[in-house]
Amino acid sequence: MKELKARILRDGRCLPGGILKVDNFINHQMDPILMKSMAVEFVRRFARTDINKIITVEASGIAPAIMVGYLLELPVVFAKKKQPSTMENILVTEVFSFTKQQSYKICVSKDYLKPGDKVLFIDDFLANGNAGKGIIDLVEQAGAELVGMGFLIEKSFQKGGDLLRSTGIHIESLARIESLDNCEIKFKD
Amino acid sequence: MKELKARILRDGRCLPGGILKVDNFINHQMDPILMKSMAVEFVRRFARTDINKIITVEASGIAPAIMVGYLLELPVVFAKKKQPSTMENILVTEVFSFTKQQSYKICVSKDYLKPGDKVLFIDDFLANGNAGKGIIDLVEQAGAELVGMGFLIEKSFQKGGDLLRSTGIHIESLARIESLDNCEIKFKD
Repeated sequence: MKELKARILRDGRCLPGGILKVDNFINHQMDPILMKSMAVEFVRRFARTDINKIITVEASGIAPAIMVGYLLELPVVFAKKKQPSTMENILVTEVFSFTKQQSYKICVSKDYLKPGDKVLFIDDFLANGNAGKGIIDLVEQAGAELVGMGFLIEKSFQKGGDLLRSTGIHIESLARIESLDNCEIKFKD
Repeated sequence: MKELKARILRDGRCLPGGILKVDNFINHQMDPILMKSMAVEFVRRFARTDINKIITVEASGIAPAIMVGYLLELPVVFAKKKQPSTMENILVTEVFSFTKQQSYKICVSKDYLKPGDKVLFIDDFLANGNAGKGIIDLVEQAGAELVGMGFLIEKSFQKGGDLLRSTGIHIESLARIESLDNCEIKFKD
């Protein structure tokens, strides 16, 4: 997606160790107009997909997910990283965070992820694919169907893209980064 | 706001101890169409207010905040509950969670909350007002101005509403709950 790539080049910051900071417009300060444009692009890319629910993981996935849900007029569920005391009837899975080098749990209520649901997962980053793997597990536990996964930015030089695509699930990334070597942002194709 | 009150009566669940569960449409599963309607109502209520930025706290505040930002075409910043390793130049404050009976820190980058900013705070719940107090502190530390605070649901029987209104800041709540006694939802006026 041209607009997103241009914005990454303008406002993204590359840090040593393959880190891309986009906290100016995606995951700390957010540009809602860009969020809407990216959601429109997801609608276009998943136009042939039968979807009845959007799922994401708190916190950075919520803004793009709610915009997709708004456009498609579908409910949006966000998996929680901490289980609220009043939450019962839950599905839990473990996610390994490569950045933090530790595991954490994400959970979702069975009331909002059910057998028969056709779920589209939306998130900000695809890097090692661990959040995606967690969602695959939750959706499977629920007896629902994961019909697609949409990411704003994919780091193609990490293994998540290949890993998730090997499951056969329809994956879309709006900007694919091939390399951040020498702190230079290079897009794939 | 009539539509929100009707939805609370229909889908909200009252638990012993003054707990109102709205995880069917606000803070776990979210209804994006209702989020947009509530954002429109905030725009109306803060129509005379000069705003250049929306602020919220992760995670449940993000959906209503991004919708307000989208309508007003303003950037939205969410305060984080964990400081990312790549985040520098930050403002931090402590927030006491009454529900969890413990304190946690919220932080925001100085790059996105600056002197001269006229900030509208949007959040899902106003109960004891502790998140609101934290935001007041962060905005003050930044040398910015807090021009208003908008909440989806206020529990008027808890002390946050009085506490925040006593600061003179313009506070709006879309649904004010007077009592949850005997697990019955009673609205104020």
